[in-house]
Amino acid sequence: MAEVVRNKRVVLRNYVTGFPKESDMEIVEGTITLKVPEGSKEVLLKNLYLSCDPFMRNLMNKPQGTETSSGLNYTSGSAIGGFGVSKVIDSGSPDYKYGDLVWGLTKWEEYSLVPSSQIISKIQHTDGVPLSYYTGILGMPGVTAYAGLFEVGSLQKGERVFVSAASGAVGQLVGQFAKLTDCYVVGSAGSKDKNKFGFDEGFNYKEEPDLNAALKRYFPEGIDVYFENVGGKTLDAVLLNMRVQGRIPACGMISQYNLTQPEGVTNLANIVYKKIRMQGFHFFDYVNLYPKFLEFVLSHLKEGKIVYVEDIAEGLENGPAALVGLFSGRNFGKQVLLVAPE
Amino acid sequence: MAEVVRNKRVVLRNYVTGFPKESDMEIVEGTITLKVPEGSKEVLLKNLYLSCDPFMRNLMNKPQGTETSSGLNYTSGSAIGGFGVSKVIDSGSPDYKYGDLVWGLTKWEEYSLVPSSQIISKIQHTDGVPLSYYTGILGMPGVTAYAGLFEVGSLQKGERVFVSAASGAVGQLVGQFAKLTDCYVVGSAGSKDKNKFGFDEGFNYKEEPDLNAALKRYFPEGIDVYFENVGGKTLDAVLLNMRVQGRIPACGMISQYNLTQPEGVTNLANIVYKKIRMQGFHFFDYVNLYPKFLEFVLSHLKEGKIVYVEDIAEGLENGPAALVGLFSGRNFGKQVLLVAPE
Repeated sequence: MAEVVRNKRVVLRNYVTGFPKESDMEIVEGTITLKVPEGSKEVLLKNLYLSCDPFMRNLMNKPQGTETSSGLNYTSGSAIGGFGVSKVIDSGSPDYKYGDLVWGLTKWEEYSLVPSSQIISKIQHTDGVPLSYYTGILGMPGVTAYAGLFEVGSLQKGERVFVSAASGAVGQLVGQFAKLTDCYVVGSAGSKDKNKFGFDEGFNYKEEPDLNAALKRYFPEGIDVYFENVGGKTLDAVLLNMRVQGRIPACGMISQYNLTQPEGVTNLANIVYKKIRMQGFHFFDYVNLYPKFLEFVLSHLKEGKIVYVEDIAEGLENGPAALVGLFSGRNFGKQVLLVAPE
Repeated sequence: MAEVVRNKRVVLRNYVTGFPKESDMEIVEGTITLKVPEGSKEVLLKNLYLSCDPFMRNLMNKPQGTETSSGLNYTSGSAIGGFGVSKVIDSGSPDYKYGDLVWGLTKWEEYSLVPSSQIISKIQHTDGVPLSYYTGILGMPGVTAYAGLFEVGSLQKGERVFVSAASGAVGQLVGQFAKLTDCYVVGSAGSKDKNKFGFDEGFNYKEEPDLNAALKRYFPEGIDVYFENVGGKTLDAVLLNMRVQGRIPACGMISQYNLTQPEGVTNLANIVYKKIRMQGFHFFDYVNLYPKFLEFVLSHLKEGKIVYVEDIAEGLENGPAALVGLFSGRNFGKQVLLVAPE
């Protein structure tokens, strides 16, 4: 007889408008049978680390019927989901077996039964690398930074790079990957800890009354690549400071996600004048880069050439607060939720 | 002794703010010696047709010291310039000789002495093709439409295409080139002559109180490629209606050129959500496509598969009115100025 255990979940109470609040979610206790149903090819996961990512805010909106993403959208009354690191407890798939450590899409609960296609990768490298890193530098945010800079942004050695949300999961890596490519890097964030990641310069956008003037100060010759994480006023100021044939890989626009009426961006004619390429992209289109990316980042990590900062909350109960904190800029570094030790 | 003749010019009186007026320009009469100075490699041109193009508005702004274009910016008190079709009267360049017909950058005057590098191409094909076409379908606007659709926009057979300023020099060609590629094409313009160019549909944006609703009506499944000529409110509505991995080649934003405070575009987060690629581009980066382009367009023209509409004003005196009319949407079809018959 398969064991039946408690399964705590973080459930969305209601679709969200504006800034998400802790009370938009609740902790619900259920049970789960620790066995994949007979004939199913699914995989039963014990979730160890869950990742708090800005894109999750968009999944909290009431579906409009026009959603274009991975079908991840949350259902009111069900557990929310996202990226996580998990241990395989039982498997109906020949690709996975008991004890395997994996990362991919899972649910915010203690145990999840998921299609094996939601697993992105088995975790092979654990020497000297915390498992939680597979929610960040060795997972989706890492590939996102890498693909955005080098594939979408066509970054060249020696270019001038600006990154917003520079202390976030993706931003801190973008800046460091660009530094490893001999670029000049400036980051903006909502706090003062500007040189934590070894960028050339950094500023707190909340302390800059004139973002255009701030960018002119740091980029007298203009910006070649702007890694876009925030949108709104920052994007507007950036457009005035881009160089000809500059590139804007657009990873996110976190400043706009909670606004019912987004800010207007007025300087778009610079896209024409300066022949700028602005391109949105999603991690899922670059999963095939993962092996190449892992080789790149693991070697630098082991040589101590990359600083990676995490902000780890503990316990599913603290999940809603950790997730909501992303949008007020409470976290410094990648926000992770520890659900269970291995 | 070289002949000295009268040389009428259209001169910019003052840098322009807001909408340009005829009185921002004046006709000034000077003289010119019909011979290239001894030792000079320049070319002396008799200007036949001058092209009225939206980008010329930007050259009328007071220079900010940050201009990034071809150094074309106008000087207050000097003749304005642009594309034109001319006849070579004298040449210091071994590449050109008396009698050659050419198109390229010239000045708004009867005769111009220009560096030979400003000539884009000798005109070889004149059978059954009006010379004026080299200011449009066989010149800069033609290459711009072609490069924007196929190179920047990566247009594929059968895709859904929307083009704004659809009765302008570039817009009318964009739509027809897309139709020749078996695409579904809708154009918007400031008048009702919607099906003049054989598009599938067309609408007058001035009669649509809700551009988003109009686009949803014409593109229930969304837009693959939006050829951007206008910016502002149209772009904002388009962003709501783009398909995943849609492309926006950005050729111009004519609705914004005369505004001292440009309109705010609020729906840019769709660039992230839908992985849209928006890219500004200039004709000059695609001049190398000209031979290939000419082959493509001449064959279709000769088979009568392309309709090309011009709006020809006559005489330099009427140049300012013709140019200013572009911005009030007075012209229907490519606005050309006839300076002198061949």
